[in-house]
Amino acid sequence: MTRRVAILGSTGSIGRQALQVIAAHPDRFSVTALAANANIELLATQANSWRPRVVSVGNVSLAAELKSALTYSPERITHGQGGLVEAATQSGADAVLAATDGTIALRAVVASIELGMHLALANKELLVSAGRLICDLARARGACIVPVDSEHSALFQCLAGERSSDVASVVLTASGGPFWKSTIEQMERATPEEALQHPNWSMGAKNTLDSATLMNKGLEIIEASRLFDLAPDRIAAVVHRQSIVHGFVLFTDGNVKAQLAAPDMRLPIGYALAYPQRLPHGFVETATRSAIGLGHDASILSFEPIDEGRFPAVRLAYNALSAGGTYPAALSAANEEAGRAFLQRKIKFTEICPIIERALEAHCNGADGLEEIEAADRWSRAFARDAIGATMQS
Amino acid sequence: MTRRVAILGSTGSIGRQALQVIAAHPDRFSVTALAANANIELLATQANSWRPRVVSVGNVSLAAELKSALTYSPERITHGQGGLVEAATQSGADAVLAATDGTIALRAVVASIELGMHLALANKELLVSAGRLICDLARARGACIVPVDSEHSALFQCLAGERSSDVASVVLTASGGPFWKSTIEQMERATPEEALQHPNWSMGAKNTLDSATLMNKGLEIIEASRLFDLAPDRIAAVVHRQSIVHGFVLFTDGNVKAQLAAPDMRLPIGYALAYPQRLPHGFVETATRSAIGLGHDASILSFEPIDEGRFPAVRLAYNALSAGGTYPAALSAANEEAGRAFLQRKIKFTEICPIIERALEAHCNGADGLEEIEAADRWSRAFARDAIGATMQS
Repeated sequence: MTRRVAILGSTGSIGRQALQVIAAHPDRFSVTALAANANIELLATQANSWRPRVVSVGNVSLAAELKSALTYSPERITHGQGGLVEAATQSGADAVLAATDGTIALRAVVASIELGMHLALANKELLVSAGRLICDLARARGACIVPVDSEHSALFQCLAGERSSDVASVVLTASGGPFWKSTIEQMERATPEEALQHPNWSMGAKNTLDSATLMNKGLEIIEASRLFDLAPDRIAAVVHRQSIVHGFVLFTDGNVKAQLAAPDMRLPIGYALAYPQRLPHGFVETATRSAIGLGHDASILSFEPIDEGRFPAVRLAYNALSAGGTYPAALSAANEEAGRAFLQRKIKFTEICPIIERALEAHCNGADGLEEIEAADRWSRAFARDAIGATMQS
Repeated sequence: MTRRVAILGSTGSIGRQALQVIAAHPDRFSVTALAANANIELLATQANSWRPRVVSVGNVSLAAELKSALTYSPERITHGQGGLVEAATQSGADAVLAATDGTIALRAVVASIELGMHLALANKELLVSAGRLICDLARARGACIVPVDSEHSALFQCLAGERSSDVASVVLTASGGPFWKSTIEQMERATPEEALQHPNWSMGAKNTLDSATLMNKGLEIIEASRLFDLAPDRIAAVVHRQSIVHGFVLFTDGNVKAQLAAPDMRLPIGYALAYPQRLPHGFVETATRSAIGLGHDASILSFEPIDEGRFPAVRLAYNALSAGGTYPAALSAANEEAGRAFLQRKIKFTEICPIIERALEAHCNGADGLEEIEAADRWSRAFARDAIGATMQS
């Protein structure tokens, strides 16, 4: 049986790799909808190749631009937040890959869950900001959410066939990013180019920068709490430079399970799209085999505690998670703004976390309903932009 | 609900540790039968403490000796192969821990499976010699066999919730034993004392010696083939000096799962006894946590290919497995005899494998039915003893 997939965020890093996975398994998948924001050239190429029924873009003028670039006539060319909902729910899809940035796809994801669709969830900010809402709804509707983040895919795989009451804790691994061996002084002088040199993964700029601050891991700790319904003290993170082991589950009886794979997003994407099946052939197996001693040489996997002095992002995330409510949304929004300001050379690398910290200190908590989350997101972005402006002047 | 356990081999290393696990979880387990061979003093102490309904020993005169050492009256004091069958099936047990040496418990294990009992199987030689018979019967009767060997427990745990058609291959880890860094010349001069210095595990002498030759891994490859119904080319082994990762399962989609735990047999024993539950608290979790970076320091896990030049045992095991029939039984029996001869200083360490190899070369294959297996076992022991005698004279 073919799974009919709507891809939200098809021109981003995850979306493009998802189309590679789908192209490698034409007997397993078809594409019913492609949605992107503003990369019309790539979206048109993708759409002309896959000919989905629904195509959606960021706004109405981009929709017109797209239409003139298409060599076929989709049933619908639509746009905006409503376009994402339409792509997910009106294209005949039975599965949605949510791989947009930010929280733009929140309503589309909620609508997919309401319909009990299979959801491959790559959108980190969405899970951080609205994770409780999304995951509670999925449990209530019996919808299946399979995470695409490699760390959460790891935990999801290790939890297969296990009872949640037997889980003692989970551990996410972090590559440590480009500055793991740097001093505070070196990090103060770090350029965007240096921050975007990820040692192992090929990801979008946002995720790569978050890996450099380790906020990536902080956000993932919040995600793990939502996805697997775990209290903050049952989630830990360790640095693992090789990015082969992506997560551990520690069970009450003293046993531990881990998932390993080469650092290639096509693996967790394929897993999430195909679940509960596994695809018949994977990518980059040789690298994984070598990492566990099946090659010609010895291999080493190392694990070390996170240095919270140089990397305060993880502590900020724990604080936001423990505070609950709209704090995670405020954290995620301030992080996006501060990160963007660093990439635009407005602030230093080491000024990213202090700006987020000030936003959290100033934030007034609210219940984590849909409106409150969207309001907290807006408030936190505005606060962060003010703080960035003040930092630039000082 | 309490699981009522019959322990076959209660005075051995596994049996003693199983009683520790059971003592730590009195709400989960009770003991209905204890069976041992000749260690009457320890068996009497165990029986007087646990007061099982059935107690069994090696022979009728040992039974009389035991009776006079007991401070209570069990329903039955019995002996021999029949005593093991009685302990397993007539003591009111719903679970059997098979932890005797050799193949003495074969009929007791078969009888337990016939009754659909829960079977925690620690007896390596039994699975090697009669694995196909035992596992086919268990599948036919719907009996649950949970392996106690740490490596097979690892694979069993990693396979939970997975479909066997999604499994590409499995990998067992080996500590490498005390001679992993030794030259052939050093191994020729190795003493029993050196061979019994295991770097990580506390096990019986037989298993410890088998770890030094790596025949342990060879036997486990055969076991894995039987337990998980895998062809020889889908089973590999790598050396992992830290003995924290016990096995990997490689899936077709490129993902890998591993199980980790401190090298303490009480963990896989507890898992096998409690399955499908997990026990609420384990042993030695601190060591496992440190190994994955949750302690104060960095940790390293290493993996390397097995050097088949210095360790021919693994190749011998693959050959026996591929030849099938009674070859695995002949391998296991010759290995026991040659190993014992080394421990008795009759032959050199490096003469163990050549004796096994000659037994395999001389062996006439048979179907792997109960009688044929027992006959192959007897033939191979006799052959090996002759070969040991010839080696001693040369």
